[in-house]
Amino acid sequence: MPTIVVDVMPKAELLDPQGKAVSGTFSRLGIEGFEGVRIGKRFELAVEGEVTEELLAETKRIADEVLSNSVIEDVVGIEVVE
Amino acid sequence: MPTIVVDVMPKAELLDPQGKAVSGTFSRLGIEGFEGVRIGKRFELAVEGEVTEELLAETKRIADEVLSNSVIEDVVGIEVVE
Repeated sequence: MPTIVVDVMPKAELLDPQGKAVSGTFSRLGIEGFEGVRIGKRFELAVEGEVTEELLAETKRIADEVLSNSVIEDVVGIEVVE
Repeated sequence: MPTIVVDVMPKAELLDPQGKAVSGTFSRLGIEGFEGVRIGKRFELAVEGEVTEELLAETKRIADEVLSNSVIEDVVGIEVVE
């Protein structure tokens, strides 16, 4: 069954308190090599049947209007996986 | 600056209440073509300097031990993007 993956991240210009918390944990644990962490969402949409052009267009609309809040988030990826 | 993306999803055998809620929203909005939705997390780790083999190994360890809860979640992807 094909799956469409939609990735949503907090906008770059906004604070990401969850990500900041994980960065803080890295420091406390002595984990080095990273400058920062941002945390977003990964939606896996299981597709009934085939992935058509229409379904991909619909997915783009859903990603913008339902799965993300465009005030604070960006849709950073829409990808079909098998 | 390179970024390592770590994707974490709820285990397939577990319920995903957030995903179920989004599926319900799809039904109410008349959105068709999808069998189900599962929602996980996408971590973007900004790397200081270069991505070395050691850093990738460390990232795998962090993904398993810090970024995910192995009781309820699986690390489904670790990918370097520029």
